[in-house]
Amino acid sequence: MTLERYGHGGDLRTAAEAFGGEPGRFLDYSSNMNPFGPPPVVGSVLGERWRELAAYPDPAVRELRAALAGRYDISPDSILVGNGAAELIDLLVRVLRPETVALAQPAFVEYEQAVRHAGSRIHPIPLLAEQDFVLQREPLEPALRASGLLFLGQPNNPTGALVPQPLLELALEGGRPLALDEAFLDFVPDERNITLIRRAASQRNVFVIRSMTKFYAIPGVRLGFMVAHPDHIRMLQERQVPWSVNAMAQWIGCAVLQDAEYEERTRLWLQEERPWLADGLRRLGLHVVPGAAANYLLCRLPAQLAGRVDELQRSMGGQGILIRNAATFRGLEAGWLRLAVKLRADNERLLLTLGAVLDEMRGRFEGGGAER
Amino acid sequence: MTLERYGHGGDLRTAAEAFGGEPGRFLDYSSNMNPFGPPPVVGSVLGERWRELAAYPDPAVRELRAALAGRYDISPDSILVGNGAAELIDLLVRVLRPETVALAQPAFVEYEQAVRHAGSRIHPIPLLAEQDFVLQREPLEPALRASGLLFLGQPNNPTGALVPQPLLELALEGGRPLALDEAFLDFVPDERNITLIRRAASQRNVFVIRSMTKFYAIPGVRLGFMVAHPDHIRMLQERQVPWSVNAMAQWIGCAVLQDAEYEERTRLWLQEERPWLADGLRRLGLHVVPGAAANYLLCRLPAQLAGRVDELQRSMGGQGILIRNAATFRGLEAGWLRLAVKLRADNERLLLTLGAVLDEMRGRFEGGGAER
Repeated sequence: MTLERYGHGGDLRTAAEAFGGEPGRFLDYSSNMNPFGPPPVVGSVLGERWRELAAYPDPAVRELRAALAGRYDISPDSILVGNGAAELIDLLVRVLRPETVALAQPAFVEYEQAVRHAGSRIHPIPLLAEQDFVLQREPLEPALRASGLLFLGQPNNPTGALVPQPLLELALEGGRPLALDEAFLDFVPDERNITLIRRAASQRNVFVIRSMTKFYAIPGVRLGFMVAHPDHIRMLQERQVPWSVNAMAQWIGCAVLQDAEYEERTRLWLQEERPWLADGLRRLGLHVVPGAAANYLLCRLPAQLAGRVDELQRSMGGQGILIRNAATFRGLEAGWLRLAVKLRADNERLLLTLGAVLDEMRGRFEGGGAER
Repeated sequence: MTLERYGHGGDLRTAAEAFGGEPGRFLDYSSNMNPFGPPPVVGSVLGERWRELAAYPDPAVRELRAALAGRYDISPDSILVGNGAAELIDLLVRVLRPETVALAQPAFVEYEQAVRHAGSRIHPIPLLAEQDFVLQREPLEPALRASGLLFLGQPNNPTGALVPQPLLELALEGGRPLALDEAFLDFVPDERNITLIRRAASQRNVFVIRSMTKFYAIPGVRLGFMVAHPDHIRMLQERQVPWSVNAMAQWIGCAVLQDAEYEERTRLWLQEERPWLADGLRRLGLHVVPGAAANYLLCRLPAQLAGRVDELQRSMGGQGILIRNAATFRGLEAGWLRLAVKLRADNERLLLTLGAVLDEMRGRFEGGGAER
């Protein structure tokens, strides 16, 4: 049984079925959440307001849209809140329904799934390990000619690479629609200069999708939003399922946006911890893709172990640590892993355990080699 | 501004914008929730588990599906949980995508909206006031011949009428797909004999959709489920947005199913209170549709006031009571209201206020008439 049985990392229940124990016992490096965990205001707002669940959620998500509009200095009419970014990805492709969608490979698997659901074709844009998976002009230009929608992660998942600004400009020339998944962009210190949120709010061919659950470590809540021209937002909302955003998500979204201290603490931690963890992984003999902009690292096992990620995943899981087999991303061969960046003590435990498991695997490999 | 601005009742924020004050101040007769409010276990499960929001929801909703399977004595493979029944209605029509869908009129507006989203045509089945809105064989037979899917509420909303069992059998003959929205059926004492859940779990042409939020008064949570043949469930799940059901909804769903006392109390209350409220409304001169099976009543204003439901809604809203203008349901002309059944003290306040407002409207009508 693979841990990505349902297509993603962070599936603690499948891990519990595979390795025993309670879902909560795992140190989860397979999903990219802020390791500070949900801000305490999440608990207090639920404690204070749960009786209000007796009413429907606000179908227009007015309070949260106003808060987001204030934060990004755009109009609430440019904002659609969704049941997680996943709903908005699916909805956008379904409503635009372009004949062909250009997708980078590797990229978040939901883009491809949304395209398949909509019955559209995929024009792949290969991202190459030897270019640190940074998008290049050469495959982008034909992709723009061949497709009716370009869908990119900014930064991309699982590679962590940002799309170079000149290529974004190239993509926007001529008015072709660009959907930009900025789910992890709030982890990037230079977010305000990189985001296309303000352009999306007024320009007709930019759609920005945001998640609120990675940065605030609340994926259980389901909460994302899209920024686009108000005309597009109206059309998309008309097709959204009513009350798609539950009331708790709306309360929590408003509450966490107030927590400036959490934000500051997160940025300081990541600035220090990501390079520290990358160094540690390199010292274990892994190749770590440079230039990662967010809170995760894409790494490759040494060549002689590349075929044995499943085994590595099992060994680590047996010791309570979940890692993401990144070979499930189209465009990555066997041997790639994606690891979240966590707090120092956990990262130390990860490095220790991973080091021991890799040594043991190498030993068996060399031992096996010697016997042959 | 109409209170049904977003297509439904229970929109407390729109009410607050219209009448002032906080959304929580209203006595809401416009949405059909169990007046006992969310079971206390909702608050305790959120208080105990909110830190677990740091993990994704179980993408396969295993624990809740197992609980539902146990309750209805069916296989978990026949169950798909959704982000409210609304998601499942939309998903079902979108995936089956029949050329024509037969819908009763009046009926819950989401059926029609789902059909329009899927690009299908509607074959209307008129329900008539003079037949107490009970479905009849005459319009059903041609509808079955003309459509690829029949979608019915059991009981129907807003009429409260149950579909006669022989007509369900007729609809199922020949294997034509039948979607049955049993969102309010848990309010019906004879639920176990009326539900088609067990047949849906094994028979290929029955789809039953259930809400868990009316009976447990938690519409803010978003939680519904569908029962169908496992092959259909697999196909539908493949098209569902991943992690569509938030973690809190999954915890709460499991918790409330344990509360047998709440269930018993609800059934006892409704048995006594519905006829009491219906009598009171009749005494005010309203026509109350007989045969209502669930926790709401469809009523008609006296002829001379029929055109003035908007005014009535505003007057009641000004006094903190929300009522549903049922003329927004296709197939009902002006003059129809839908009212939830609530606890005695609230129902007394409703009757007093409504009586005073109606008297005042009649007075102005007669006064105005005298002046002309």
